[in-house]
This record gives sequence, structure tokens and C-alpha cells, in this order.
Amino acid sequence: MTPAERAQLALLLEVAGTPKPGNVDRERDFPDLRFEHFLAGAVGAGAGLRAAEDGAAVGEAFEEAVAGMSGQSGGNTQFGALCLLVPLVKADEPAPDAVAEVVESTTVADAEGFYRAFEHVDVYVDDPPEGADEFDVRRGSDAIPAVRDAELTLYDVMELGADEDGIAREWTNEFERTFRAGERIAELEGPLSGRGARVYLELLAREPDTFVAKQHGRRVAESVRVRAQEALQGARNGDLELLRAFADSLVEDGINPGTTADIVAGGLFVALARGETP
Amino acid sequence: MTPAERAQLALLLEVAGTPKPGNVDRERDFPDLRFEHFLAGAVGAGAGLRAAEDGAAVGEAFEEAVAGMSGQSGGNTQFGALCLLVPLVKADEPAPDAVAEVVESTTVADAEGFYRAFEHVDVYVDDPPEGADEFDVRRGSDAIPAVRDAELTLYDVMELGADEDGIAREWTNEFERTFRAGERIAELEGPLSGRGARVYLELLAREPDTFVAKQHGRRVAESVRVRAQEALQGARNGDLELLRAFADSLVEDGINPGTTADIVAGGLFVALARGETP
Repeated sequence: MTPAERAQLALLLEVAGTPKPGNVDRERDFPDLRFEHFLAGAVGAGAGLRAAEDGAAVGEAFEEAVAGMSGQSGGNTQFGALCLLVPLVKADEPAPDAVAEVVESTTVADAEGFYRAFEHVDVYVDDPPEGADEFDVRRGSDAIPAVRDAELTLYDVMELGADEDGIAREWTNEFERTFRAGERIAELEGPLSGRGARVYLELLAREPDTFVAKQHGRRVAESVRVRAQEALQGARNGDLELLRAFADSLVEDGINPGTTADIVAGGLFVALARGETP
Repeated sequence: MTPAERAQLALLLEVAGTPKPGNVDRERDFPDLRFEHFLAGAVGAGAGLRAAEDGAAVGEAFEEAVAGMSGQSGGNTQFGALCLLVPLVKADEPAPDAVAEVVESTTVADAEGFYRAFEHVDVYVDDPPEGADEFDVRRGSDAIPAVRDAELTLYDVMELGADEDGIAREWTNEFERTFRAGERIAELEGPLSGRGARVYLELLAREPDTFVAKQHGRRVAESVRVRAQEALQGARNGDLELLRAFADSLVEDGINPGTTADIVAGGLFVALARGETP
């Protein structure tokens, strides 16, 4: 399997893993965002992932992947996951320093591609940090002149968001949680999608999901973390009741720990790249 | 979406459709053949499908797709579906005469690629027709000299099998059931994977599955057809009890109507090519 194929398979294995409380999974559809939107998103992202493999720059490949991902009616399915997967595909090896080299070498042109990607799909994003309004990603291509004037590389843009956004933080932190997830997936046994679901819960129990924090505030994100911890403890003791109740209540409250799912997708890529196979 | 992407998505939507009695689906794994093997099979088949789109001959593209599909540990996941999808990808339009033109134009070299494809994965195949032992596909590449001597094109090879094999019959019959399935999928409403599952049941209720006939005999295949009809009737009246019992009993008896699932994959391609999208 090529790196681009591994990335595509990682997207599919991620969404197939169940239960993944608060997210679409093999057993859970939402009314307007269904499992098959993620299947179509993964297929559509393929060309951009292959472009990354074939030497396209990060920003260009990312924009192409997001454009392809968006050819379904569910909206944003895998934007955050692709932010991690495109540099992982381009890295010389599935290792922190190799991917750090990729992201640290990004240019202003990569930043432009990233901003253009927001034109293809609605992505939920919080307000930018104080004083950074002109670089607000929600402005899409309109922000590009300011980005150019300030000579911001894509890495710089991610640094602006790293305090608030778990994906940006991976960029500035050698993909630490992504690689930890990958190692943990490789260590577990059984079907890969099931391992992904387990690591999702472990990650969620350890750190508040930044996507939940953006949409519902830090207190809600912390409470989700504590409940994930309880559900995980129950599951470890063979009691899945708490896990099921937790999953149902997140759906009822419209809480979607999307960043954690994105990191699992990155982790699945790492596990596949290190030799795990379905 | 390109034709190759539609074919890949068709593979994914097919396996995601549930319930699909006797087959792996979104809600059913078998002990050694799991949902994620089909995900990996669909990803791996991508390069061969793109080769078909880019002008590679049917046999070459098919062999590449099967080789890629086999990069997982579940064994044969989508061999039959790819037999239908490769010509569909190459057809000028998603129409019976266009795909007939593709298959009728196949050459001896295409037949060689087809025989080589059997080297990549174990495919359950029945005895060849009387007097055709030397062309037994189970011989893989060893049969190629005989195929060359007899100047058999891939279409000729399919003609040899058309009496016993539902996929070969599609080749010699302008993909009749495939297009009928595609039209029916386009006509139904709701998520595409669910429509695929419904059409699977409709097809199964109408004609005995040739894969079941090969493995278990014609009487079993006919009895599966009758029970599919009863389950379908129940489902139409809102009663899913018979359908569930039918699905469970096929699994218990190790009966796998794989040919019907393959035709649904082809039908999903047709529906996507005619404008349906997830």
C-alpha cells in the first residue's frame, strides 16, 4: 500500500470504528451527516492525497483533498483529519521528526492553499486570537492578501491557532498525540477499526476535545473528558452500559468530539505505515 | 467524481448496505472476513480502477485492481464486483451498448490478465464446463498457453462460464441485471447504501444466486430465492422479523449470495454515474 492509500484507508477505518461517542460511526448516523458521507469523503480525498505523495506542496494537496472530500451532501466530514494526513503522507517516514520537517518547511503558498480550502466546505471555526482578525480562516481566500503581506507560512498560521485547536497543536508539537495514538493502536489487538474506537475513548478521557471546547465551552469539554474516563473505566471492566449512555447523551446534546476523531485517523495512518494491516 | 472514484465508492456503498443477508455488511462481520477487509479491498482496488479510466486494457486493469484488493488478510472481497466495474469504468457512458462494446472488444491479452488475477487471491470457482478443463480459471497462469492456442478473448472466456456464473452472464448479456439494479437504486429514496441493500434483496428474490448454486447446489439456491421473496414481502409490509431470521440462518448455514452483492456494486456504479450522490 502506498502512503496515499494508507491515508485513505485510515479515514475509512476511523469512521468504521464503533462506538465512538458523539461521532458518526459504523453504527451511528446523524440525520444530515451519515456514514456514507464519510465513505464518499474518503474516496473524494484520494486525488489530493495522491498529489501529496507525488510531490505536490502541502497547501495545494490539502486544498485538492478538501475539494474532493466535499463532493457529497453531508458537509465537512474529514477536514481536520486531512490537515494531519497530508503532512504524514509527505513525510519521508512515519516519525515525529520527519513530519515536523514537512510542516516546518511550509510556505506562504501553502498557507494560501489552506485558506482556499475553506471555500470548498463549511468548517466550524472559533474566533481567531485577539489581534489576528485579518487572518481569520473563515474569511477564506479574502484573507490571502493579509497572509501574503505578513508573509505567514502555513506553519505560522497553525501556530496562531495552536492554543485553541488540537489539530494546529499537532502541527506545532511534532504530531505528539497522533504518534501516541498510532503506537497505542499498534499495541492493541483485534480489528483495526475497533482499536481506533478504543484509542478514541482513551484520548477523549485524557484531554478535553478542542472542537467541543470551541462549540460548547471549556467546561463542557472538561465534563466530556471526565465522562469519557468513567465510560472507559467501565468498558475496561467489561461493563459497556456507561459507554452506551455516554454515547447517547452526546448525540442528544449535539456534542461532537471531532478533533479527537481526527487524531485517531492520523494514528491509524501511523499504525498502517508501521506495518499493521486489516 | 471520476468513473474510477465512482467505482471505488460503489464498492464501499455496497458493503455498507445493511441488512444484506449472507454477506458482510455494516452490521455484520464474519470471523475471518470483516467489514474492514472490504474497506481495504476498495482502497487497494483504486489503482487498477484508475488504470482502467486512463486507458489500460480490461485484463491489465482488472489484474491490477485484484492485486491491490488482495492487500488485506480477509481473502477475496470484491473479485466479482471488479469483473463488472472495470468494463463499466471503461465504457463511454453508463449504458448497456457502451459496456457491451467494451467487453466484446476484449482480446486474448485481456484473457491472460484475467487468468493472472487468479494468482493474487483464492476465488471459489466451480468445475469448468465439460471439455473446457484446459481453460479452468483455477489453473491461473498455467492455463494461459491453452488460452493463447485457442485464441480465446476474455469475452470468449466469459461465454464459457455464462451458463453457470452470474457475473459471466452479465458480460454476455449487456450487463442486464446490473443496469436494472442501477435503475432501481436511482428510483428508490434514502441513503444510497440502504437502497443497495433493498435492491440486493429484490435481486435475490427474483433469481437464484449463482455463487450459492456453485457452493451448495441449485436446490439450495432456489430455496434461498424463495426465502428472500418472503423476507422482502415482509419488509414491504413493515415486518423485518423474517428478514432478520433469514439473514441469521444464511450465516449459520454458511450461505453467501456473493454474486448478487457483486451485481449491486455494479448497480451502485450505474446509479452514481447517472447522477445519484450520497
